[in-house]
Amino acid sequence: MATLIALGSTVAAFPAAAAEIIASKPKLVHHVFFWLKNPGSQADRGKLIAGLRLLRGIPVIRKLEIGIPAPTERRDVVDASYDVSELMFFDNAADQKIYQDHPIHQHFVTSCADLWDKVVVYDMAIVPE
Amino acid sequence: MATLIALGSTVAAFPAAAAEIIASKPKLVHHVFFWLKNPGSQADRGKLIAGLRLLRGIPVIRKLEIGIPAPTERRDVVDASYDVSELMFFDNAADQKIYQDHPIHQHFVTSCADLWDKVVVYDMAIVPE
Repeated sequence: MATLIALGSTVAAFPAAAAEIIASKPKLVHHVFFWLKNPGSQADRGKLIAGLRLLRGIPVIRKLEIGIPAPTERRDVVDASYDVSELMFFDNAADQKIYQDHPIHQHFVTSCADLWDKVVVYDMAIVPE
Repeated sequence: MATLIALGSTVAAFPAAAAEIIASKPKLVHHVFFWLKNPGSQADRGKLIAGLRLLRGIPVIRKLEIGIPAPTERRDVVDASYDVSELMFFDNAADQKIYQDHPIHQHFVTSCADLWDKVVVYDMAIVPE
């Protein structure tokens, strides 16, 4: 039988940490779609993805995934015309605003804005399960 | 100082579980936006959200978040005109197809399709970090 023995302050620390994780579950999704000025340009797509990766330096971002159109079934409702996408989770709208104004994000916009022709943003408040 | 001592098979079990989690990280995001026939109808929004919650019974869905437009800054690029949104993670496009054809999903479509006027779907393949 497996046995786990904890000594000192460790036992007390576990429930506290778990409670913190539950309490701070991100409640806001920020999903951005980019259409390049040169659609299909692998070079420009690579530059944009490289720029987006730098956003990971912004502490209020709880999760960041970068993507491209997936090889799913082409249906009328599916918009696969974008070139690059970023999906972020924040704790709340205030943190999203902090991200928006953060120097790293501002630098991303000024250094990469020439690459895209169109941007569409969806901000989604997660409803409780 | 906190000390943790593990005995028996517990130590060996931890790395195996961690490796499994890393290996199976979802690689596909399926984000759907719904515009209701009766925009602003709290009743219809509630029905749609209730229908979406039932999708949790589909095993290939790795994560499902349901949302509504968030109270973020209104900017030209932000589309906050939708009523309800679903965000799902799948391991891959094959699993997304299994979801698409799953009886629970088909039931959702037939029972809730009358509620919406427009649907837009974005499928995103996550690029490696």
